Amino acid sequence: MNQLRWDPTLGEWVAYATHRQDRTFLPPAEYCPLDPTKPGGFPTEVPRESYDIAVFENKFPSFTPDAPEPDGEGGALTPTAAGRGICEVVLYSEDHYSTLATMPEGRIRDLVEVWADRYGELGALPYVEYVFIFENKGEAIGVTLHHPHGQIYAYPFVPPRPKKELEAAREHRDGTGNCLHCDLLAGELEDGRRVVAEGEHFVAFVPFYAHFPYEAHVYTRRCAPSISDLGAAERRDLARVLKRLLVGYDDLFGFSLPYMMVMHQAPTDGGDHEGVAHFHIEFYPPNRTADKLKYLAGSETGAGAFVVDVLPENTAGTLRKAIGGAGA
Amino acid sequence: MNQLRWDPTLGEWVAYATHRQDRTFLPPAEYCPLDPTKPGGFPTEVPRESYDIAVFENKFPSFTPDAPEPDGEGGALTPTAAGRGICEVVLYSEDHYSTLATMPEGRIRDLVEVWADRYGELGALPYVEYVFIFENKGEAIGVTLHHPHGQIYAYPFVPPRPKKELEAAREHRDGTGNCLHCDLLAGELEDGRRVVAEGEHFVAFVPFYAHFPYEAHVYTRRCAPSISDLGAAERRDLARVLKRLLVGYDDLFGFSLPYMMVMHQAPTDGGDHEGVAHFHIEFYPPNRTADKLKYLAGSETGAGAFVVDVLPENTAGTLRKAIGGAGA
Repeated sequence: MNQLRWDPTLGEWVAYATHRQDRTFLPPAEYCPLDPTKPGGFPTEVPRESYDIAVFENKFPSFTPDAPEPDGEGGALTPTAAGRGICEVVLYSEDHYSTLATMPEGRIRDLVEVWADRYGELGALPYVEYVFIFENKGEAIGVTLHHPHGQIYAYPFVPPRPKKELEAAREHRDGTGNCLHCDLLAGELEDGRRVVAEGEHFVAFVPFYAHFPYEAHVYTRRCAPSISDLGAAERRDLARVLKRLLVGYDDLFGFSLPYMMVMHQAPTDGGDHEGVAHFHIEFYPPNRTADKLKYLAGSETGAGAFVVDVLPENTAGTLRKAIGGAGA
Repeated sequence: MNQLRWDPTLGEWVAYATHRQDRTFLPPAEYCPLDPTKPGGFPTEVPRESYDIAVFENKFPSFTPDAPEPDGEGGALTPTAAGRGICEVVLYSEDHYSTLATMPEGRIRDLVEVWADRYGELGALPYVEYVFIFENKGEAIGVTLHHPHGQIYAYPFVPPRPKKELEAAREHRDGTGNCLHCDLLAGELEDGRRVVAEGEHFVAFVPFYAHFPYEAHVYTRRCAPSISDLGAAERRDLARVLKRLLVGYDDLFGFSLPYMMVMHQAPTDGGDHEGVAHFHIEFYPPNRTADKLKYLAGSETGAGAFVVDVLPENTAGTLRKAIGGAGA
């Protein structure tokens, strides 16, 4: 069952997907369902002996293309809708023990291509309003499979957080004529203290108003609305900057750093997002130290107010050192 | 250092409190800083040999009354402000091993009195716009001290989540003349499937659009804007309904259930919140089963879109059984 229910107090859809309760949970490495299927071995979700990058529909999807219309549930205040959408799994490598950070830059470059392809194809579906590309990495984030992979949720609505960001950017553009993200990036570059890696086309920085201690954003210098709008040189540079940031993350505490990686870009709802949407990638590592996590507890979850223990200038300095010098 | 920084992409304040990084982290029970100070023993934060309920300022506050004005940081797009406010700790009992669920109903009744008192006193401070009463319970939520206690954050702004709720309620009232929460409660009572405990003045239910599997809201039947507005009979009934819900939570899986408990009520910003703010308490337990947690990962944190594995009707049924029958 895939159903959406409207929360009228927060003005947002909540998705219900009742078959997900039984999804595969941290299987032993030799039974990884994301490994290639070896001759004579058990059949995994990839019916091939080897692969580079693989994309397929999630077996336990939060949204499905054929979700039925809800029958008689809900009311005027709390409408319901079919949970129509697509959930895909993106396998980064057949090597169970690799991570995005340990991939060669060329593989990340290929991944950018795959992400752009999926954004275009899923976004073209009439019921998909937002293509959300992300990765949950590490048990601290709650991953249920260790094999290196990301996910794509093609939502039937523009989700609350990108929506808020787009509204703010639209208001800024209407007021100033400028792209909000271009203005913010210019400010970060001018200040410089929070910039952690600079490429020709992309810049990674800890935002002035980071919600997580080691949060980092990767912005395209040019105001490109989506990953599909990037040219070949930009895609190469994105892979390069991502690789540098990820290697720095792992050097930070000397272990493979857990994180959420999320991409914000133009909705695919048919609206005009030129000069409003500005493609960028946000990383939220949960660690506040090597052995302590930032929890989203009462203040964050119940009030929506983030409290952070450390200034972005300081974490950016540490992260920049781990990366080995910005602009290098 | 207590500083606020404005996030112009989300339109919200982020608070920085840089001394909190070193706060006490899961000390052994015999060194609990929230126990009473025993004769000849080490001095705890409570310089008394015994107490029932105790309230004092948090030693590691996210906001302080005398936070200095930020000096030269920020800009037009990303202003800063002093992190002025008050953070209090509310000790529920001197018994280190008790929980709110195991307290006698009379103690919870006394706590309601304390909460109402703190709401009034902190809310009267000129720089406090919102008094947020909450409890983070259990290591799964990230508590750093096990002693039974709650917290109060007196924010210098109305935090994002209550703000959104108040805006929705104001729009509803302007459009219909009704209180949004009164209308939602009437709908839940008429449907009945998600009601888990009914008192004379308070009702506990799993909302139709729950974001967490076993989320429960405790609404006052009368449209009281804040906990201070409750009369003696209402306060008694609130304690009774809370006790029943909490005992049910612990019976659910046979262990003391972790949760976030948060109170939403009228801001103390001098505005008119009559018919808009409706005092209620929300509980978010992180468990989706006895041994699996709901994580706020990519979709929830990066997109703001919640995906839930189980329907509120089902969890409400289970919770109602654990409580021992609604209305009993």
